Amino acid sequence: MGKNRLEAFSDGVIAILITIMVLELKVPHSPDFGAMLPLWPVFMSYILSFVYIGIYWNNHHHLIHVVQEISGGVLWANLHWLFWLSLIPFVTAWMGENHFEAGPTAAYGFVLLMCAVAYALLAHALVFNHPKNATLAKAIGNDRKGKLSIALYLIGVVLSWFSAGMALLVYIAVSVMWLIPDRRIEGKVTEGIELEESAKRDAT
Amino acid sequence: MGKNRLEAFSDGVIAILITIMVLELKVPHSPDFGAMLPLWPVFMSYILSFVYIGIYWNNHHHLIHVVQEISGGVLWANLHWLFWLSLIPFVTAWMGENHFEAGPTAAYGFVLLMCAVAYALLAHALVFNHPKNATLAKAIGNDRKGKLSIALYLIGVVLSWFSAGMALLVYIAVSVMWLIPDRRIEGKVTEGIELEESAKRDAT
Amino acid sequence: MGKNRLEAFSDGVIAILITIMVLELKVPHSPDFGAMLPLWPVFMSYILSFVYIGIYWNNHHHLIHVVQEISGGVLWANLHWLFWLSLIPFVTAWMGENHFEAGPTAAYGFVLLMCAVAYALLAHALVFNHPKNATLAKAIGNDRKGKLSIALYLIGVVLSWFSAGMALLVYIAVSVMWLIPDRRIEGKVTEGIELEESAKRDAT
Amino acid sequence: MGKNRLEAFSDGVIAILITIMVLELKVPHSPDFGAMLPLWPVFMSYILSFVYIGIYWNNHHHLIHVVQEISGGVLWANLHWLFWLSLIPFVTAWMGENHFEAGPTAAYGFVLLMCAVAYALLAHALVFNHPKNATLAKAIGNDRKGKLSIALYLIGVVLSWFSAGMALLVYIAVSVMWLIPDRRIEGKVTEGIELEESAKRDAT
Repeated sequence: MGKNRLEAFSDGVIAILITIMVLELKVPHSPDFGAMLPLWPVFMSYILSFVYIGIYWNNHHHLIHVVQEISGGVLWANLHWLFWLSLIPFVTAWMGENHFEAGPTAAYGFVLLMCAVAYALLAHALVFNHPKNATLAKAIGNDRKGKLSIALYLIGVVLSWFSAGMALLVYIAVSVMWLIPDRRIEGKVTEGIELEESAKRDAT
Repeated sequence: MGKNRLEAFSDGVIAILITIMVLELKVPHSPDFGAMLPLWPVFMSYILSFVYIGIYWNNHHHLIHVVQEISGGVLWANLHWLFWLSLIPFVTAWMGENHFEAGPTAAYGFVLLMCAVAYALLAHALVFNHPKNATLAKAIGNDRKGKLSIALYLIGVVLSWFSAGMALLVYIAVSVMWLIPDRRIEGKVTEGIELEESAKRDAT
Repeated sequence: MGKNRLEAFSDGVIAILITIMVLELKVPHSPDFGAMLPLWPVFMSYILSFVYIGIYWNNHHHLIHVVQEISGGVLWANLHWLFWLSLIPFVTAWMGENHFEAGPTAAYGFVLLMCAVAYALLAHALVFNHPKNATLAKAIGNDRKGKLSIALYLIGVVLSWFSAGMALLVYIAVSVMWLIPDRRIEGKVTEGIELEESAKRDAT
Repeated sequence: MGKNRLEAFSDGVIAILITIMVLELKVPHSPDFGAMLPLWPVFMSYILSFVYIGIYWNNHHHLIHVVQEISGGVLWANLHWLFWLSLIPFVTAWMGENHFEAGPTAAYGFVLLMCAVAYALLAHALVFNHPKNATLAKAIGNDRKGKLSIALYLIGVVLSWFSAGMALLVYIAVSVMWLIPDRRIEGKVTEGIELEESAKRDAT
């Protein structure tokens, strides 16, 4: 099975997820700007989730880019990841509507946690199916960022019960960590692709 | 008519279907985790339908993969199948909200049944239009799994009136049956594709 | 501007339109099958609109298939057509919820009418931009079906005020007219494409 | 990173945005045409936003068309632009439901303003990454239309507090300005593409 349809399907689901969150922004019935004020937690949740889904779309793109074939196992690892991603609009709305109270903030962190775990499983399924793909192995590396994120999400979930604001800061910190370009790794991948391509050329 | 736009359109509809189900997960207004508890049948229905739509997407991909041309009849067989698929979010929400009572559980099974029947019709329309495509014939084979599923859905619909829990177990069993990779058949298809491709090469 | 992105964008919008109509099927709160009964006009409207959007998707595909370049005018003619198409879910829901009363049934016919007019404008914009494309001219021909449809929609809109049931029958008849494959024309198009391609080959 | 997936993802998000606005057209419960009358501001807002999103889709297409590679910065500039675009359905519904009162009309203008600013940032990010792409530089030019739009949106936002009708006229005027084909610029771009292509041919 080629990877094109998997990419197209994932892109479709991600595009829908990032967009339907806006449907949870309930239009206030009053024309006063004051009616907008109580919506700030909803907007803030929306922005955070928008950034998270954007980061995942970007990372997913790079991950799938370096492989050619998709096995049945990878396909289901991908669907499993999309499943957890699909819960983001739900927990985003719950957290926003309840102004970052303990329960919803913990639930939000839990879904982020499961997204990260599912993404790690997807990466491992890919490595399992492409044991000789050096570019892929390098691209994933020891996945320090991924492991750190999982640890921070766990901390965030626990923190929610003591201070939801602190938990939120942890979630924001993780997203910032992913936003900062990691040029060293990106360089490695590019280099790896070139190496592989030159290896292919040599083989022909 | 090429198959690319049919694939893209089907993927689009399936991606939307699998995602809008999440809109039926009504956000509880209370921040308590207790408010989540009554939602478990809704979540369980969501997971089951997510898996079903995932299976169909996967199978549809393999089915269309082996043909090149799409006739008007196949196009409408495909739309007919998408129509029944589009009712899944509706019956999922009805079943989830009513905690697996007899009526909604039977309706859920009925829609699954019609999806399976429509899928079988689509497969037959493809065979009818590609009578000489050996790979396609092999891929579909005598379609034991498909026929068994239809029988099980029928049993599930009837069972709903006696025990909705048993009916649900039947639906889950069918999805598990499709999740287990059927390596023998997948092998056959791959082999068939290779045979056909080598036949093409010989012909040129 | 190439036609690929126009096709992809139109497919995306059409896939969403055909799917979000299902969101208007409000889930009944009661688990009784009796709760489904009052929904039959909603379901019937859904089926009719599903078929209509399916027909348009199919026709649009064939129309765009025979051209290569898209001008700014064609792009806006296409968006204008998508605009009227986007109102189908709205009038479908209004007609379904009000059990085919005069006003909503007339509004439904009016939107179908405008879709047909916008589609005819799109076809003319294409011909205007490809005056020498014989295949396109043949494919559109004198567009008897299109003109007949517009006349029938007009009759349907007027009929709605006397008998909504009769108006509905007119709308159904038009959809059936489009469902019946018009092999003579399809043959012409295929032939035309072959002619054009052979002409191109001769020119090179 | 190739531009195909960025184009596909942006198209997906834009197709969803332009379509979900129709979900904000709440179906009236009465079958009387009179029930439609109070909906005219909602319809008018819908049409205006439909045209705006159509213009952006068109412009985005032309902008991305002339580049080949997408850097991480461009990707995030694109997501930032999509973020502001995603708020259009929200402010459209708010403005429509409140019959063009001061607050919502100003908010609508503010979101249009931010879309234009984000689009300008995206264009600059592209130029920054393709300093030698003469076609891109020419295509963007001194971006008089873009700057004028930003100024007009600002005027519109301020005007809203004095006369929402006047502000609305300003927004409509900006959309008309973009709808009128700017043949001189389009000519330049086409010319530029030809120049570049001939330059490439010379280089080979």
